[in-house]
Amino acid sequence: MFTFALPKGSLLKDSISLLKSVGLDFSAFLDPSSRQLQIADPTGSAKALLVRAQDVPVYVEYGQAQVGIVGEDVLREKLPKVACLVDLGFGKCRMSVAVSEASRFTSALELPPHCRVASKSVRCAREYFQSLDLPVEIIPLYGSVELGPITGMAEAIVDLVSTGRTLKENGLVEIEVLFESTARLIAHPLSYRLYSDEFNTLIDKVRFAIASPAIAK
Amino acid sequence: MFTFALPKGSLLKDSISLLKSVGLDFSAFLDPSSRQLQIADPTGSAKALLVRAQDVPVYVEYGQAQVGIVGEDVLREKLPKVACLVDLGFGKCRMSVAVSEASRFTSALELPPHCRVASKSVRCAREYFQSLDLPVEIIPLYGSVELGPITGMAEAIVDLVSTGRTLKENGLVEIEVLFESTARLIAHPLSYRLYSDEFNTLIDKVRFAIASPAIAK
Repeated sequence: MFTFALPKGSLLKDSISLLKSVGLDFSAFLDPSSRQLQIADPTGSAKALLVRAQDVPVYVEYGQAQVGIVGEDVLREKLPKVACLVDLGFGKCRMSVAVSEASRFTSALELPPHCRVASKSVRCAREYFQSLDLPVEIIPLYGSVELGPITGMAEAIVDLVSTGRTLKENGLVEIEVLFESTARLIAHPLSYRLYSDEFNTLIDKVRFAIASPAIAK
Repeated sequence: MFTFALPKGSLLKDSISLLKSVGLDFSAFLDPSSRQLQIADPTGSAKALLVRAQDVPVYVEYGQAQVGIVGEDVLREKLPKVACLVDLGFGKCRMSVAVSEASRFTSALELPPHCRVASKSVRCAREYFQSLDLPVEIIPLYGSVELGPITGMAEAIVDLVSTGRTLKENGLVEIEVLFESTARLIAHPLSYRLYSDEFNTLIDKVRFAIASPAIAK
């Protein structure tokens, strides 16, 4: 019996739709009045944990969940020891560099050396600027990264952009895209080797489901 | 004119009450329909930023806010370069070690060497177990740390406990207290030296306010 680690937040609804289309019903997690963090599918054939997106790879890496759904951005930031099984297609967003609309900078390479860049994705931001050979000071933040340029604390931010609405509302403009991200199906590597038949059945069902137009992309 | 960094979450209401009693009105942040992250006091004598609790010391350290209110637990975890001005008394909680009720361990020293301890406060947890000379593996989590022992991923957790309700609801029991924590008034060190008269006036007003019984403790 598999345990799935599902991410709270923007990927949850599509993750639950996808699993429903492969015969697993975890829609109890969508009930806002429920505080349950651990449920079983009504058929008793699988369990699921509801955790923060960043914690999904932790539960999968330690084998407490054999399968997880998480954004590629989290995998790139945390580099967990998990197996990446399927690109699920939904949850499309991009990791971008953005600056104030009033700023004179139109590309990352124009940013002044040793300027400040605020980000929740410290590793992604650092690696990107290292790849440009541009030394910058990364300011690690937990939330509302857009306040960085607004308050003058940072010249730029590196943040996830989906519709671009938050950037626009805060007078920021995207100047570079580091990478595109989508939701991924991941697995505990040892479980994947031990239960390869069950995993391959699941992967086939998931691939069939995401190829069908009924699933929200 | 001072800019205050105020923490989203459990300390916000008491922080705003306290500042109101010293003549600064940032109650607009309590309006759930507002999405503003930056406001001015109606008298125009101060500004405030609404940020994640963990980001308060960042804004104060970089001088984008000269004053901040934040839990001591965040200061112990992040060790920011800020000046600690006043213990505000409210926001009482404690950083504790907890285990499952079913566990046989009744103190931290009984935990088996190299066991797993889940925590959001990785530095605090690591330093505590180092001080006991007990090697443990810290599993960094972002949320719902109580799932660690429930799923069997961790033998224990290190987490903030306020009423103890979350622990109880999840069948966990406190076995050690690392430290007690309350909200602190912090300052940007250079601003504190440059504007010592303004700071001392503020500190006197805050001390007077917290000594009066009208402020929520």
